[in-house]
Amino acid sequence: MNHILVVGSLAYDSIRTPAGQADRTLGGSANYFSLAASLHAAVRVVGVVGSDYSEKDSQLLTSRGVDISGMTRVPGKTFHWAGEYMGDLNEAKTLTTELNVFEKFNPELPENYKKSEFVFLANISPDLQLKVLNQVSKPKFVGCDTMNFWIESKKQDLLDVLKKIDVLLINDSESKMLTGSSNGLKAAQMILKMGPRAVVIKRGEFGFALCTSDGWFVQPAFPMTEVVDPTGAGDSFAGGFFGHLASQSGEVTIERLKKACLYGSITASFTIQGFGVTALADLTKAQVEERLMAFRRVVSTV
Amino acid sequence: MNHILVVGSLAYDSIRTPAGQADRTLGGSANYFSLAASLHAAVRVVGVVGSDYSEKDSQLLTSRGVDISGMTRVPGKTFHWAGEYMGDLNEAKTLTTELNVFEKFNPELPENYKKSEFVFLANISPDLQLKVLNQVSKPKFVGCDTMNFWIESKKQDLLDVLKKIDVLLINDSESKMLTGSSNGLKAAQMILKMGPRAVVIKRGEFGFALCTSDGWFVQPAFPMTEVVDPTGAGDSFAGGFFGHLASQSGEVTIERLKKACLYGSITASFTIQGFGVTALADLTKAQVEERLMAFRRVVSTV
Repeated sequence: MNHILVVGSLAYDSIRTPAGQADRTLGGSANYFSLAASLHAAVRVVGVVGSDYSEKDSQLLTSRGVDISGMTRVPGKTFHWAGEYMGDLNEAKTLTTELNVFEKFNPELPENYKKSEFVFLANISPDLQLKVLNQVSKPKFVGCDTMNFWIESKKQDLLDVLKKIDVLLINDSESKMLTGSSNGLKAAQMILKMGPRAVVIKRGEFGFALCTSDGWFVQPAFPMTEVVDPTGAGDSFAGGFFGHLASQSGEVTIERLKKACLYGSITASFTIQGFGVTALADLTKAQVEERLMAFRRVVSTV
Repeated sequence: MNHILVVGSLAYDSIRTPAGQADRTLGGSANYFSLAASLHAAVRVVGVVGSDYSEKDSQLLTSRGVDISGMTRVPGKTFHWAGEYMGDLNEAKTLTTELNVFEKFNPELPENYKKSEFVFLANISPDLQLKVLNQVSKPKFVGCDTMNFWIESKKQDLLDVLKKIDVLLINDSESKMLTGSSNGLKAAQMILKMGPRAVVIKRGEFGFALCTSDGWFVQPAFPMTEVVDPTGAGDSFAGGFFGHLASQSGEVTIERLKKACLYGSITASFTIQGFGVTALADLTKAQVEERLMAFRRVVSTV
């Protein structure tokens, strides 16, 4: 059986959207990813939390069979992000980022984590991403995410990471920032030359584009007429994507990457139905499969 | 055989994009629409041009079999629009709009136009759209486009038009303006209640969403890594859409609307490969069919 190792943030988020607000609700890329991926496969989390991190929030992951032995608890406060979405929900305005215990995060993998077949390096500093990856012996498939802050402040480290991964999942706007191209699809082609064998451009409400040596696979998002909170959609996409890949034995073929994108996209469509991880926490694999079937009807060509 | 009547602008446009610029190049919604639709069906144009409108530009339409007997030539200058696209090409910044002869445009249909089965009311004042539509006897299928300017300045006329049409083709941002919804898909559902049996939300580089009583049909755009000039993409979409519908006999079913959207979207992907109507003028039906097949591969699910 395959295992997925994920490193990322475990956080409390304060979020305001046109639909309402949530204060210090559970969040962080590693939580979104793990809840999504654990519907399909075994997940191991690496991260750090403060003394304020509630037992209930740890149990949410263990109740899904997630291994949290790599989650370190240290004195101090858990990472806290506060943000606000206006209008079309495509971009969050960050109000506060309190790194807290995350500031001195120095990931050390438990021994059993080092043989993980799948590795996802969520959106953290590229030097930490490298540090985690270097501790894993011969992973079968590695992916990462990144953001504008790292593209601007740690570009060389990020380029080093790109040489060592199989797939980059990145927002449309950040793909443009990374490459200097004004066209997100052109940017994907340029990133392909930087190392990964696949690039997934996440287009928010408009779906995704997968770029490989085999060409394009492009799909819209599942149509959602009400969005409560878009936070974590990208990490949920990655979780559904890796969850599907790790649930299968054998080679990671391009056909399999396409299907993984569908699982990622459908999973994200649930996440945005509630604040923080609430909708994802209630999600079942059967609901994902049901919506995937509904999606196939929506995009079925004539 | 079905005929499509289109009323819209015939214009000279001055366009600047990151790919270059074109001065006083042939444009206008009726030109884009007619060139696109005439690949599939017989088109009749209603519009007005000035004494500066070149014979060659009229002949471009007649060479495609378009009936231009409803194109009036009057003393004065042809409508002129100047605009500029920056960055991601999604929105034009208008530099100049010189209505010129269009200012006193009072559309009177030639007798043979009045029995047109299909009618497309391109993006002109809603009172002119109504005036044209009222001259057609029992059209089988009517569509229209609109824009922010008319939504703000002639909303009641526009609502009157919506009660009399079968399909509205509208930009994502303008659907939100028309309805007050911040979600383009929600907006489509709201517009459906205003009269039309179908709403097509045009999402630019991200494709389209068709909303009917039967639910959604959503597709991405054909992946384009180089865009020269997005002007006219929406009118070309409408042209491909109506061209396909009019090429078929019998009822306009929902399945047929879906296929019409695919033709519209593929046609628009060619338009943006050149300035003004240049790419569309060279387009053949075989090229459209070929790219439609390539598109089906890009979106083929696993």
